[in-house]
Amino acid sequence: MKHTPIALAAALILAGSAAAKEGMWTPDQLSLIAEDLKETGLELDPDSLDELTDFPMGAVISLGGCTASFVSPQGLVVTNHHCARGSIQYNATAEQNYLEEGFLAEDMAAELPAAPGTRVYVTVGVEDVTDRVRQGINADMSGNNVHDTIESRRKEIVAECEAQAGHRCQVSSFFGGAQYKLIDRLEIQDVRLVYGPADSIGKYGGDVDNWMWPRHTGDFAFYRAYVGPDGQPAEHSEDNVPYQPEHYLKVSAAGLDEGDFVMAAGYPGSTQRYARLPEVKHTFEWRYPTYIDTLNGWIDTIEEAAPVGSDARIKYESLLAGLNNYVKNLGGQIEGARRVGLVERRRAREEALNAWIESEAPDRGYAETLEQLDELSAEMAQASKENRLYNDATRSSLLSAAEDLYRLSKERQKPDAEREPGYMERDMAFFEQRMQRLERRYDPAVDRAVWLFFLEQYVEADDSVRVEALDEALNLPETWDEQQVADTLDRFYAETGLDSVERRLELMEADPEAFENSDDPFIQLAVALYDTERELEREGEARAGRMQVLRPDYMDAIIAWQRDQGYAAYPDANSTLRITYGTVMGGSPKDGLIYAPFTTLEGILEKNTGEAPFNAPEHQLELIRESIHGRWEKESLDSVPVNFLSDLDVTGGNSGSATMNARGELVGLLFDGTIESVNSDWDFDPRTTRSIHVDSRYMLWVMDKVDGADHLIEEMELVE
Amino acid sequence: MKHTPIALAAALILAGSAAAKEGMWTPDQLSLIAEDLKETGLELDPDSLDELTDFPMGAVISLGGCTASFVSPQGLVVTNHHCARGSIQYNATAEQNYLEEGFLAEDMAAELPAAPGTRVYVTVGVEDVTDRVRQGINADMSGNNVHDTIESRRKEIVAECEAQAGHRCQVSSFFGGAQYKLIDRLEIQDVRLVYGPADSIGKYGGDVDNWMWPRHTGDFAFYRAYVGPDGQPAEHSEDNVPYQPEHYLKVSAAGLDEGDFVMAAGYPGSTQRYARLPEVKHTFEWRYPTYIDTLNGWIDTIEEAAPVGSDARIKYESLLAGLNNYVKNLGGQIEGARRVGLVERRRAREEALNAWIESEAPDRGYAETLEQLDELSAEMAQASKENRLYNDATRSSLLSAAEDLYRLSKERQKPDAEREPGYMERDMAFFEQRMQRLERRYDPAVDRAVWLFFLEQYVEADDSVRVEALDEALNLPETWDEQQVADTLDRFYAETGLDSVERRLELMEADPEAFENSDDPFIQLAVALYDTERELEREGEARAGRMQVLRPDYMDAIIAWQRDQGYAAYPDANSTLRITYGTVMGGSPKDGLIYAPFTTLEGILEKNTGEAPFNAPEHQLELIRESIHGRWEKESLDSVPVNFLSDLDVTGGNSGSATMNARGELVGLLFDGTIESVNSDWDFDPRTTRSIHVDSRYMLWVMDKVDGADHLIEEMELVE
Repeated sequence: MKHTPIALAAALILAGSAAAKEGMWTPDQLSLIAEDLKETGLELDPDSLDELTDFPMGAVISLGGCTASFVSPQGLVVTNHHCARGSIQYNATAEQNYLEEGFLAEDMAAELPAAPGTRVYVTVGVEDVTDRVRQGINADMSGNNVHDTIESRRKEIVAECEAQAGHRCQVSSFFGGAQYKLIDRLEIQDVRLVYGPADSIGKYGGDVDNWMWPRHTGDFAFYRAYVGPDGQPAEHSEDNVPYQPEHYLKVSAAGLDEGDFVMAAGYPGSTQRYARLPEVKHTFEWRYPTYIDTLNGWIDTIEEAAPVGSDARIKYESLLAGLNNYVKNLGGQIEGARRVGLVERRRAREEALNAWIESEAPDRGYAETLEQLDELSAEMAQASKENRLYNDATRSSLLSAAEDLYRLSKERQKPDAEREPGYMERDMAFFEQRMQRLERRYDPAVDRAVWLFFLEQYVEADDSVRVEALDEALNLPETWDEQQVADTLDRFYAETGLDSVERRLELMEADPEAFENSDDPFIQLAVALYDTERELEREGEARAGRMQVLRPDYMDAIIAWQRDQGYAAYPDANSTLRITYGTVMGGSPKDGLIYAPFTTLEGILEKNTGEAPFNAPEHQLELIRESIHGRWEKESLDSVPVNFLSDLDVTGGNSGSATMNARGELVGLLFDGTIESVNSDWDFDPRTTRSIHVDSRYMLWVMDKVDGADHLIEEMELVE
Repeated sequence: MKHTPIALAAALILAGSAAAKEGMWTPDQLSLIAEDLKETGLELDPDSLDELTDFPMGAVISLGGCTASFVSPQGLVVTNHHCARGSIQYNATAEQNYLEEGFLAEDMAAELPAAPGTRVYVTVGVEDVTDRVRQGINADMSGNNVHDTIESRRKEIVAECEAQAGHRCQVSSFFGGAQYKLIDRLEIQDVRLVYGPADSIGKYGGDVDNWMWPRHTGDFAFYRAYVGPDGQPAEHSEDNVPYQPEHYLKVSAAGLDEGDFVMAAGYPGSTQRYARLPEVKHTFEWRYPTYIDTLNGWIDTIEEAAPVGSDARIKYESLLAGLNNYVKNLGGQIEGARRVGLVERRRAREEALNAWIESEAPDRGYAETLEQLDELSAEMAQASKENRLYNDATRSSLLSAAEDLYRLSKERQKPDAEREPGYMERDMAFFEQRMQRLERRYDPAVDRAVWLFFLEQYVEADDSVRVEALDEALNLPETWDEQQVADTLDRFYAETGLDSVERRLELMEADPEAFENSDDPFIQLAVALYDTERELEREGEARAGRMQVLRPDYMDAIIAWQRDQGYAAYPDANSTLRITYGTVMGGSPKDGLIYAPFTTLEGILEKNTGEAPFNAPEHQLELIRESIHGRWEKESLDSVPVNFLSDLDVTGGNSGSATMNARGELVGLLFDGTIESVNSDWDFDPRTTRSIHVDSRYMLWVMDKVDGADHLIEEMELVE
């Protein structure tokens, strides 16, 4: 079966002979594309890739949000610098500023604990549980009934799986709920920081270069996974020993050339390649543009309330970077949608599907499904419009904490299995970390300014967005009266005790009455909003439940339509293990401009201004000026390759994925995509979609020449 | 003799095998590089290029600030759209908005007068007058004596030349005054607008794309030169007839391929490739960064005083565009200087020159010259620092007008030959146009805001910058007192009559007493500042005079040093006719990024947002979507090439130059350089310097398919 999937099928019309490899394949789909894997250059047996506990998949792990790989028999883990940076920061002090200087443990004893909550997840099994989850689900059930039934079955399956000590399980939905799989993962809790280069290497180019090519980022770092002396996952302890993975990746010192086969296994977060036209239009014509305005106002508000150089600014740097990043991403998505004509392309695709249904499958009820699906999509878009300003108007960190804590007290009155996900016993470690983390990311003046900004938007909008419970609890005026609302907020921040971490942790144990009788204004507000929030939640779940009935049918039509044309369809990304493969290649992001496939050391010199984020260490600059390349040189470049491009199909969550060559050896780490690629989440454009990797030769050169991490090079198995 | 010149010699060390052709050669230098011209691909006899009145140089003309060419026996002139846009704007009305719709005269009778002051200059002779200008100049003379002597001789020579009716002459300085040449030019005054595409083609990409690649600008337009029935230049008249040039360029319909020979003849404005280190440091470490701050403050002030949509904004759009453009240019220059390490490179070059002097020419006094030259350079830098804020503090358009008019009244008391250049009878037509033009570019509230902004800078600086005459005349406070100064300015704008064009023209005839007795506050201020201004001018002239003694000696050393190594040196650009040649080629502006040599029609679609400056006419977009290429297609691109890159060595003033192929046929028009090239004014970097051309095939495609200018295609001589 040909593997060219749906979006590509349409894209080819536009892009001519582009050869990019669309598809985020689940391991069990690899048999469908075995032939093309070989043709593209895979030297391993394609069948070996679908065995999760075999080489190479057994070496690929999740950090929850990022991907990583084992690269030694002693549990050495390589991932992106930006995936491990939280742990570097967590260990840094004014005296030992590891962000500025980098960190390298000279031996295992010197390794440092990773940031709280850091986990290594090893996927050990995937089981189809569709029948068990969906049994009896039908269109006659209410949306809430569908939602509740499915959720309770998912929780039941997870609970059974987690009866195995040291396992963390999830039931994931594929093809919009047409398929459910139980993902069984070993959860290693003792993770230690081994090595992270300085920000001036690992984050070279910083937010300026984010999503940009040419790129020169040394985005790599090393952890080590530890387990108890019995080999089982255990909490951090001096007695723990390095985890010995069944498989680990060899590291290629020979590297790659343009045109070489590459693949990556990782945990892409989410894509919307099968979204219907109403959702696409809603997103690109209203949601994204509106959100860019909101984000810009939010950013301005924080910047004003937390001036450069203030302590508050330090606490909000990370949020600010994230918001700016999001603005850039949304801008890239909107620009990409314009460039490819996304709305028109989606319309054309849906017309083609309709035509196929009419001629090939008129009796399967697809047409009615699609009609209802589009109505529901439009309804969801409408709800998102209506609820946006209310949701924004409750964006105070302290209010969120109060709401989460009150909810927890209510949920804890139910048996664990009946609680809302996020409030079950299995979630408590993360819940507690969230309550603690607030400490480092909160400043009352900034939180108040942000809340005031959003309340103004809410009050100044037309009356249809107003929510009575909020209006009453905050005594919000009919028309905006900044002084009045500011006075209310001042009282909130003056009288609350939620800014104390002890208080928040204490409240994790409190019962609902304690909240209902509290005189803390944030808690009073949380209590006042509770019923409204639950109502909104139920409405959302009802729509989600109805979607659960319609969407599998839609995906069924898509799969059948594609199969009819000789194509395999792959499911949207959902944070589960996927494989993508393709070729090292530059590209043309726009007419007249060409991305070369590799960047070189000299590009670091070229960009270097001496000011962050273009402030490579002087020692590194000297090495480059003197052309000290060692064995890591790529002859045709007369330099060491720093980053490279490929046509792999990836999205957020793939960060840290090992990039493997045809023999499954590590040739780099995937860490980003170009800005022209971000729109691929909606519509894969083979001409412009390029992922960005740090080259293993640059990693080794930095370890060898710059940071002297010889013992780690020694520990890994290098191959030529 | 090898022609690789000075900057390239150093640059090659950095750039490896770059092959860009540095050099803006005077026609009489072409014998020095004849061999390389042939090797690079010129098919014409190189000797034919130095005959100004022969083909092809006889077809190359100046518009004063832009370059153009004759392209038909009937005086049809092609140049850049941006060079002719003033004439399109001048003829546009609300009903007939030629900027939006474009203008095409259906026959000669329909051609429109170009904007006032538009001229076509045909260079008819160049004569070396060095001996006559410099005779007897020596180091014992005072700087002012040197300056005055040279200036008076230049004026004398010009006067003799302009005794020929219809000629406009100039004596230009080459190699920093080592050489003077009389340039004799025919001045055609009756210039008419024939055809200019709409802004949405001719200015596609606008200021956003300025200096950018990839580029898709249809930057071309047509004039026609008219003369009296006797064939001599004459003022605009219905009796005039098309000028019949001795030579005109044929237009290539075959176009170019990557690697093809190209050359351009044009009038580059100014370069500083032989600037000494103190000047380079002053410029890049102080002058440019300081000026960027000033420009940004100036821009903000105008934008605030002239809000978007106001009438005032329309009057200042052009200035704003210019200022923003300048900020972008200076930023590009600073970035380029950092990238190539300009200061270090210049230091190294000077050390190499010193070493050569010491070993090869120790007795020629060069070492002493250089020492004095560097002292004088430092002195000039210091003066520029000291005078900057005072100069800025007199930046009111009305004050400038008052100062110019009062100066004119004083100069007119002298015999014409003794007057300051700019105030002689030959300058009066342009002077009058300037007084008229103010009308369209002046708004009192904006002029006042800008002046206030600069006065604040002046008052808030330390006392050393203060100029007594200004302080007294404006009663400026010791420390900034906005209200007090604003009150003064309010009175100025309320009481002046200079905002009337009639009044300004009337004052062109007034005598000094009329100014000295005037109660117009701007005129009173001009009178009060007069002596101070003249003193500053004399000080500047004294330094310039001393430079006239030292710099020729320095250039003599440079030329000898270069000759000794087998290189020819070319003079810095000075708005005289130069020839540059090279190759059609893309480039790599930075590591990992490649500019393709051609852009295509599809790139217009890709960029098109529907909003200016990316708002190509719908008819054009349709043609592109339907791949209507006609005979203008370049097969290897499967499209019509829109713009292309070459390694020609050009700068501002070259705009509009015909780009010629090996046979001297027009294959495009030069209209810009890439942002990475702007620093080439100081230091030619062969790796990044690329000029941008509009391809003749795109011009012809637009004329043929979009605008239906068939009769003009007919009039030109097309060759395959």
